[in-house]
Amino acid sequence: MKELEFIDIIKKTLDNDTLIGDDCAYLKDLDIFVTHDTLVEDVHFSMNTTSPYLLGRKSVSVNISDLCAALAIPKYITVSLSLPRYIPNSFVKELYRGINDICKEADIKTAGGDITSSSKIVISICAIGKKTSEFITSRKFARINDLIVVTGEFGSSGAGLYGLMNFLYTPESLKNIHLNPKLRIKEAAELRNNMTNNIALMDTSDGLIDALYKISRASGHNLKIDINSVPFNTDLIEFCTHNNLNYKDFIKWGAEDYELLACIPESMYKNLDKSKFKCIGSVQNKDTNSCVFIEDNGKIQKITKDIFEQKSYNHFKEGK
Amino acid sequence: MKELEFIDIIKKTLDNDTLIGDDCAYLKDLDIFVTHDTLVEDVHFSMNTTSPYLLGRKSVSVNISDLCAALAIPKYITVSLSLPRYIPNSFVKELYRGINDICKEADIKTAGGDITSSSKIVISICAIGKKTSEFITSRKFARINDLIVVTGEFGSSGAGLYGLMNFLYTPESLKNIHLNPKLRIKEAAELRNNMTNNIALMDTSDGLIDALYKISRASGHNLKIDINSVPFNTDLIEFCTHNNLNYKDFIKWGAEDYELLACIPESMYKNLDKSKFKCIGSVQNKDTNSCVFIEDNGKIQKITKDIFEQKSYNHFKEGK
Repeated sequence: MKELEFIDIIKKTLDNDTLIGDDCAYLKDLDIFVTHDTLVEDVHFSMNTTSPYLLGRKSVSVNISDLCAALAIPKYITVSLSLPRYIPNSFVKELYRGINDICKEADIKTAGGDITSSSKIVISICAIGKKTSEFITSRKFARINDLIVVTGEFGSSGAGLYGLMNFLYTPESLKNIHLNPKLRIKEAAELRNNMTNNIALMDTSDGLIDALYKISRASGHNLKIDINSVPFNTDLIEFCTHNNLNYKDFIKWGAEDYELLACIPESMYKNLDKSKFKCIGSVQNKDTNSCVFIEDNGKIQKITKDIFEQKSYNHFKEGK
Repeated sequence: MKELEFIDIIKKTLDNDTLIGDDCAYLKDLDIFVTHDTLVEDVHFSMNTTSPYLLGRKSVSVNISDLCAALAIPKYITVSLSLPRYIPNSFVKELYRGINDICKEADIKTAGGDITSSSKIVISICAIGKKTSEFITSRKFARINDLIVVTGEFGSSGAGLYGLMNFLYTPESLKNIHLNPKLRIKEAAELRNNMTNNIALMDTSDGLIDALYKISRASGHNLKIDINSVPFNTDLIEFCTHNNLNYKDFIKWGAEDYELLACIPESMYKNLDKSKFKCIGSVQNKDTNSCVFIEDNGKIQKITKDIFEQKSYNHFKEGK
């Protein structure tokens, strides 16, 4: 797992590593949150399967998702664009039309950046958000008996990508979620408004089990979910049946749904809008080998470190 | 000039373009400055001529330079790293040792980022600084009779790069400035402490004439300098003589010296430390076709739009 190895090296090399870890950093003296993500052509996207407009939207929304998971209110982005020299003006125009539209929807502003040339399209976006809650979120805040709640549906984005990459007939609903993920700003606001404690909160950018496993490891608690309570789009079943695929694998391991996953007390869950948040499991006992348990009609699958590392999404492993 | 064309398209596409222009954006409601620059392998650097350690340092210092030009105090960076899969752990370690060292020297902290794979090394850094002065800097603030003052020496970095790219024997002083530019944090603080008005201030990341020309166009004033008053390293003459090159071309057009260039009233210049700041010219009359005049032993060269566009540094033009 080269990505994790690299992060380990970075932490050991930096004198100050306290700000490295979760997907957002909180800069206390400036009272802001900051996050920075880069999308690389043919690693994170392919121009065969998306459009410049959708790419512009998505490159912003993945960063907004990180801010939402930190309960920050997104305010500004900077955009650093690296483009091959054959790129026409229309590409830049469409890309920025997408950036502009998503910024309007999220009520944020584009505050500069730079443009340079490169052999592949690289879009690097830094997003800055305002702190608004007295409470904070971190993977380590999961507590025993917390409910595990999620927004939206799972597996659609992974299946949409699979269909696009393999030239399969793919329902629009699955493709759309992959190419144009939903913003969860309202849902983050609802969590913020109902918090009475620090909570564990993440976005599921690297998949459902990835989020569960990371919270489990950071908090030292076992996490247990019922896979049949996880919301999904019925088109996913149709797509998987037709192509002889296991739809539950997409729900569990599929990446880029960009939904929110939180571990919260039952008293807080009671006050949430149930059309926005579904409970899929609960936080269990403390355990030095903490991991994730997935119940499926009475059977329990244990996601240990080995299984996680073997199956989880890793940019340096997948040969992309 | 594709880069300028692209910027024009971006400004036209964004609803809010007020924050696009100078190298730093000031985010008023958060009271911070932000800048974002990306270095791409084989466009901005080559691993044949630098080391991972120096690359780490430089990728941070070019961003600090932008903050200094905005008179902001650098506080944090985020680092987004895209690396080919063949990159060994030692590269990441050395790169971050460089990042850590320059951050310590500048008293700033690394606040996260991400790592992903790519076909070339791409380092995207977003730097955040604190506003400290009641005054602001912008290219448009040059006023008639202002003195044009600069820090450091010119031409060294451009000549260092030329030597490295062409496998010439190149003095260490020139190579060093190119590979490891100096920070101008103290000089920025001295300007800040002596300001009584908004001033025009830039870094010379794209060359001396580039900075002069941009201030001239933004302020609508002619700018005039005496090329023989511009500080340079004597090794530059030796290097150019030996290789049959014109050293004044490097002083004028060579990029990446990362010095500060300011247009300030004479009353302010009087109070500055003359070992840090040299006067090289002055701001002239207003002119609808404002441009740059370079005096050289009585002869005057006029840098018009055509000459500027033909000679200035442009990532999309140079075929790199």
